[in-house]
Formats: sequence, structure tokens, C-alpha cells
Amino acid sequence: MNQEDIRISPDDRGFLFADGLYEVIRAYHGKLFRAKDYIDRMNFGAGHLRLSKTDFSEIEDLALELIQKNHLTAGEATVYIQVTRGAARRIHAFPDPPVGLTFYAATSRLDVEKARQKQEQGIHAVTVPDIRWARCDMKTTGLTANVLANQTAVENGADEAVFVRDGVMLEGTKSNFMAVFDGVLVTAPLSNYILGGVTRKFVLELCEKEKIMVAQGPVFEKDIHLASEFMIVGTISEITPVVRLNHKPIRDGAPGPVTRRLQAAFARVIEAL
Amino acid sequence: MNQEDIRISPDDRGFLFADGLYEVIRAYHGKLFRAKDYIDRMNFGAGHLRLSKTDFSEIEDLALELIQKNHLTAGEATVYIQVTRGAARRIHAFPDPPVGLTFYAATSRLDVEKARQKQEQGIHAVTVPDIRWARCDMKTTGLTANVLANQTAVENGADEAVFVRDGVMLEGTKSNFMAVFDGVLVTAPLSNYILGGVTRKFVLELCEKEKIMVAQGPVFEKDIHLASEFMIVGTISEITPVVRLNHKPIRDGAPGPVTRRLQAAFARVIEAL
Repeated sequence: MNQEDIRISPDDRGFLFADGLYEVIRAYHGKLFRAKDYIDRMNFGAGHLRLSKTDFSEIEDLALELIQKNHLTAGEATVYIQVTRGAARRIHAFPDPPVGLTFYAATSRLDVEKARQKQEQGIHAVTVPDIRWARCDMKTTGLTANVLANQTAVENGADEAVFVRDGVMLEGTKSNFMAVFDGVLVTAPLSNYILGGVTRKFVLELCEKEKIMVAQGPVFEKDIHLASEFMIVGTISEITPVVRLNHKPIRDGAPGPVTRRLQAAFARVIEAL
Repeated sequence: MNQEDIRISPDDRGFLFADGLYEVIRAYHGKLFRAKDYIDRMNFGAGHLRLSKTDFSEIEDLALELIQKNHLTAGEATVYIQVTRGAARRIHAFPDPPVGLTFYAATSRLDVEKARQKQEQGIHAVTVPDIRWARCDMKTTGLTANVLANQTAVENGADEAVFVRDGVMLEGTKSNFMAVFDGVLVTAPLSNYILGGVTRKFVLELCEKEKIMVAQGPVFEKDIHLASEFMIVGTISEITPVVRLNHKPIRDGAPGPVTRRLQAAFARVIEAL
């Protein structure tokens, strides 16, 4: 149906309570990239939120159908999917008896020009205090802190803000990050404080193929001046070098060799899809 | 308009990002209770969220009109109000140029029978780890943690869950709390970790009138067995005694004298509205 005709009830628990989950899956030339990983993460979140349904494997076919019906099989597209606990009279606890979940999906063409330019030239990023909740491993729509942090980035002429909790850099508002120290790629370990990024996982696999050493451990903000490279990784950003952090250049302020190798390896996988 | 006819766009930032605020104002026999305090809190939140509008004083007239048009001037009613940053193409940062805010308000009759019974007999409560974000002073719709905590309460046969952060009891999922130690009423101080409750403020005023000593300071969960009384205060609960906490009775498991005095003082103010 037309997006303008979609109606969300004001009693929807997505609107009232951020009581739901979302995913953004990318399609390259009509082919979904790692759909299963996105669906697994939604299933994981649904289990932890205790939604009445915890298997969303039908999303794969549905996303493909959406892309086809919208004539987006050429070029690149994203499919946004959101599931909420449904619409019911407003009480905090789960509706009892349960109501049907709300399921919303929409596709749109991805304008890759700007993203590619950023991947080429690198972006600026800033750090912000992590004021988010302690279950960032669930991809809920409770994104108020992400909105405010991303706005802080924009107002500082940056593209991304990286959350810092107790001195440790954790992840961006819509990306994970990776830093290179002495040739070793370091990224924040999986925990309740970060989202298990699909692209993060994929890039770690690329590191293995490329024989790039990896350490999953804390990156302290105070040590970031020692990094020779810094990059964000995500569904939209893929691998995007960060060349300035908090207005200071990372190394010489240009994308580094590890970043370039990983970008090339990434591109080869996409070409072979 | 009919509530069923209200349409929220799936692009609404309330639905996508919990990028908005809400309030629930109570009316006793057609008269709003402390409307200005609720509106002040929404204005405060709007300032901190940097909404394009930070003065919602028209809510008072609008709420009264809603109550009248819905024939709810006899008995008790609530008016739910939600404001979001509006509907726009999905990006984390604020829409630029800004779009009009979404404003939603609905009124409904308040069934007071159950609430009165709880105020008479007392309720059970449990404590839960506070996994919420660090800006609980803003009444945003990012309530996923409150939903899960309240559900935990329900599954434990309790009516409310009290968030504990670093050993300190902070507030309920939809109420503030007050404990009595050696005749002194103690409540969590205002901070970024609790909502400045309208009823909390009102009850502290009642304490002054009633010459009940008050301390605003940390209540450690480990000390709660020393409390002689425990109560939650909120717009719907007013003053409701908690007679069991984590399955253990507070004192003798019956509402105590300070609670009763405050309830009586509360009722006198309402009668005189």
C-alpha cells in the first residue's frame, strides 16, 4: 500500500512506550545483504522484550517482495522494519490478553552517492557521554539519546557521535566503530552496552580473511590519540573512515591502509553477491 | 474527533525514535489538578529535547475543553497528552528544516474504585535494577524499561516496581515513593535519575502543612527493612501505601499513621477544589 495510507493507532505501544524493535536491511541490486543476521537480531530482541512472536524469518521474503513491487531491484535500497507489542488501552504492563503485534515495513531507494563520497574522503566524529539505558543490545525504538547525540554531531560539523561510558568508547549512534592500534584492529566487545552490528560481524570476518589481527576489548577515549586509524561500520556507512575525532585529526587526517584494505575486501563481497 | 479516526504517520518521530514527551493530567469533577505543574514539566522537557516549541500553556484550556466535550465533568478523568518532534523522513538528527510537531491528546474516564481500594488496603511492590537512561527527569515516551519493570511487578503479584541504581531506590515505573524512618519522611532527591513528580511535590507541601519532617536523600535498598512506612505517590495512585516490598511486609504489613494523615490531607485539598 501507499506509505501515506499507513495508519498507526495513537494507542500503539510503539508510539506510547517505545515498546518495539526495528531493523534496517540493505539490498544491493535486489539482493538482501545478510538478511538472516538482521532477522536473528530481531528474534533475539523479541525474546528479550518477550513479544508474543519471536521468529520473524518471513521478513526475508517480505523484504524481497517489497523491493520488487517498488521496482528497486536495480541499484541499492533499504527496507525498514518495525515491530511493536501492538495497540491496546494504555497500561505499562503487557496487554493481557495479548493483542496482535504491529508490523510495519517500508522500502526506499538508497542514495549511495553521498555515502560513497564519505567512504572515500572520511568523516568527522565527536564523542558524547553515553546516557543511554543498559540494554543497547536490543534494537528498540527508544532512541531519544541517539537522536540528541546525532544532533550534537551535526551541530559540530560531524557525521557521527560515539558514545563513551566510564571512559570507554562503545559505539556510534547508528554504527559500531573500529580503531587500529599498532596494526591491530580493536573494537568494543559485545555486551549489553552495544548493539551486535551485522556489519561489525561481517568486518570481523573480513579481518580474518585478510589476516588483520583483531582484539575485542575496551578502547579508552584517553588513548584514542594513539590510534593510527579509526572507522565506523554500519548498514548504511558500510566502512567509513573517521579522519577527525573531536576536531583533532586521526594520524595525518587521511584514511589509512587497514581501512582501505577492508573497504576493498567489502566491495569484492558485494560485487560477488 | 473520534479516537479511532486519529492517524499517526509511521514516519512520526514518536513512533520511530521515542522523540517526544507526554503528560497525564487528572481532573476531579471537571477541574484539572495542578495543570500548571504538568505543563511546566512538559515545557522543561521540550527545552531539553530542544523541540521547536517550549511553551505548552494552551494545554490547560485544551484539556478542559476535551473533558467538557466528552461529558466527563462529573466524576474523575485523565487527559493524556503527547508531543513529538513531528513526522519527517527518517534520519536521527532533527529534521532540517524543522517540521510541525505532532500533538495528540485524549481524555478518558478514570475508574477510581480500584485505585481507592488500593489506597485503603495497600499494595505490593518489588525492586528492580534501574536499567533506564540517565535523563529520567524528562518525561519522554522512551519507556521500554518501565514496561519491562512494570511487567515484572505484575508477574510477582505486585502493583509497582521501584528502580534501584547503585543500591539506591529512586522511583517507581509510574510513581515516586516515600519512606518513613523514625517519623521522618524520606524521598529520593530531584536529579537526572528521577522524574520531578507533580504529586511528589504536592505531598511534600502537605508534609509542611502537617508538620511532618522531610528529608530528601538517598534511600538505600539495604536499609528499607528499617522503614516503618512506605508509599508511592503519583497522578493515578495519589498516595498509596505499600505494605509488602519484595514479598516482605513493611513493618506490620498495614498502612501506617503518616500515610493515613497524608491521605486525609490530600483528600481535603481535593474536596476543596
